[in-house]
Amino acid sequence: MSTERMEEFNSERSRLNEIVMSYAGRDLKRLYHIDDAVYKDGALPAKTKEMLGYVASLVLRCDDCITYHLGKLHEMGTTSEEFEEATVIGYVVGGSITVPHMRRAFDLWDELQKAQ
Amino acid sequence: MSTERMEEFNSERSRLNEIVMSYAGRDLKRLYHIDDAVYKDGALPAKTKEMLGYVASLVLRCDDCITYHLGKLHEMGTTSEEFEEATVIGYVVGGSITVPHMRRAFDLWDELQKAQ
Amino acid sequence: MSTERMEEFNSERSRLNEIVMSYAGRDLKRLYHIDDAVYKDGALPAKTKEMLGYVASLVLRCDDCITYHLGKLHEMGTTSEEFEEATVIGYVVGGSITVPHMRRAFDLWDELQKAQ
Amino acid sequence: MSTERMEEFNSERSRLNEIVMSYAGRDLKRLYHIDDAVYKDGALPAKTKEMLGYVASLVLRCDDCITYHLGKLHEMGTTSEEFEEATVIGYVVGGSITVPHMRRAFDLWDELQKAQ
Amino acid sequence: MSTERMEEFNSERSRLNEIVMSYAGRDLKRLYHIDDAVYKDGALPAKTKEMLGYVASLVLRCDDCITYHLGKLHEMGTTSEEFEEATVIGYVVGGSITVPHMRRAFDLWDELQKAQ
Amino acid sequence: MSTERMEEFNSERSRLNEIVMSYAGRDLKRLYHIDDAVYKDGALPAKTKEMLGYVASLVLRCDDCITYHLGKLHEMGTTSEEFEEATVIGYVVGGSITVPHMRRAFDLWDELQKAQ
Repeated sequence: MSTERMEEFNSERSRLNEIVMSYAGRDLKRLYHIDDAVYKDGALPAKTKEMLGYVASLVLRCDDCITYHLGKLHEMGTTSEEFEEATVIGYVVGGSITVPHMRRAFDLWDELQKAQ
Repeated sequence: MSTERMEEFNSERSRLNEIVMSYAGRDLKRLYHIDDAVYKDGALPAKTKEMLGYVASLVLRCDDCITYHLGKLHEMGTTSEEFEEATVIGYVVGGSITVPHMRRAFDLWDELQKAQ
Repeated sequence: MSTERMEEFNSERSRLNEIVMSYAGRDLKRLYHIDDAVYKDGALPAKTKEMLGYVASLVLRCDDCITYHLGKLHEMGTTSEEFEEATVIGYVVGGSITVPHMRRAFDLWDELQKAQ
Repeated sequence: MSTERMEEFNSERSRLNEIVMSYAGRDLKRLYHIDDAVYKDGALPAKTKEMLGYVASLVLRCDDCITYHLGKLHEMGTTSEEFEEATVIGYVVGGSITVPHMRRAFDLWDELQKAQ
Repeated sequence: MSTERMEEFNSERSRLNEIVMSYAGRDLKRLYHIDDAVYKDGALPAKTKEMLGYVASLVLRCDDCITYHLGKLHEMGTTSEEFEEATVIGYVVGGSITVPHMRRAFDLWDELQKAQ
Repeated sequence: MSTERMEEFNSERSRLNEIVMSYAGRDLKRLYHIDDAVYKDGALPAKTKEMLGYVASLVLRCDDCITYHLGKLHEMGTTSEEFEEATVIGYVVGGSITVPHMRRAFDLWDELQKAQ
């Protein structure tokens, strides 16, 4: 189950993507397409790939990217233990500069857990 | 033409710069001065320089810096095709982590286009 | 003395830290503990350490981290001249991409000075 | 099986870690300890954790960190298909700025494959 | 005209790209293709695009990426004045942390100028 | 006292700076001048400023910048305890991605200590 915050995030993301697409040339459209394709099941399961995207987003400190992958991880049935362990790897690699993003990530994760 | 959002950005920026200047020593004042000077017409036209500032801001993922240079590019008559191509270079170099910033950039660009 | 903005920051920070701790395993708890310990008086005084944390946060461009260390520097009696000089080092090393964060830092510093 | 390059990397890493430890206080020793602990089997298998460490290192563009995690992934029996898919996520998230690191990563991976 | 250093760079780059391609799946091949396409003449001339790639590489501090775009700028007849002005924008935006990369860039630029 | 490695670093740095200056316009010269000025004694002692420059360089992971500030800290009589504590702050803030740079920093520090 989703929450109001998650739905607002997704709806604003869709609104903005439509604007991007109204300006996008061929290469930008292709980049969007590839960005979708690489997270599909392959030699690695989609869930592992979302986790890679989540930790990459955490160490690069992008809240919107974190929110997106966190939502996917939640939908795919990631447990809180798995989520915590992936997050700690991001914290260890990226340092305390990632902590404000990690705090907001756990806040959203908690909200999604309680909405279930 | 500008928009309400752009004017609020510029007015908040001015308010904060006044506070900075009330604390600034000689070196900080000089840095502000140089930061202005390097975007003036020279061997490269000012528009190309703003574009360099814009793409640098995009790959370093600084929304305020993006907004500032985007506003300048708009004032200088950059076309939407030129803006899109510069943006795509930023996306290619900086990766999907730049996408949330790119989305907000196109949203603001679209607003400025429609206000004309 | 503190200000309303600073108190809201600290109270939200505490709320979120409680959520983090409700999910945290042993390693995450240890990381939080070390993150506290390294800023205590040692061969270097705590104030110098907070200044190192502040400038590191400025060049890495993390507003929440800046706010936290800035608050500590204020509590420890840092003068505005010291604060300005530390900030300028961050600006010189990190470039104009740090300026929006620097502006917000001086705004908060100014507020704290006026609340005294 | 390992290769000469990988063994030289590990031996230089050990030499330097000994120097670090000869200066390290309690907190630094603890950080090294935690940095080891978080990659052990838990709710997530060690192999997934190394993959998270690898992709985080790729998007943050640290060759030594990439080499370390790549070596672990190889030891743990990661297939070339899995390795390629994880790498592509890093490329997509981090952009073409990661490509020189990715090239060196595949070069080392190829060397390890051929040494088997 | 090129120089020995530039030729060695290009030949090592080709050797590594062949290894990458021997492992690459469809998405990785597409990313390589797009990375080429976005620098072609369009609404913006190819030279401006290489300059955007160069400054993006400078502020993200990637020596190999700098070398590549710098070589292209040289081939396209960029003057030393234009090169200096683009570089200074990178320095201003990215700060003194870019200086070691800038030093190596001017060293290579100087070598290419003298080889003409 | 210095070491051969430190002297080679300084001599290569000087050689490259001369090349930079042979191309530099007014703004680039001014930036070099300011970059020198901000580390002089002021409200904060020069040693504290070098330490801020060192930790900023560590979290931004620039080996040349680390080497430069580390050399200055050594000349100014920084103790190994002070150096270790400053370094640990960099590690805590910047994460394990800084470790390869930290290892090389301690290696150089150790060499300078033994040369005394």
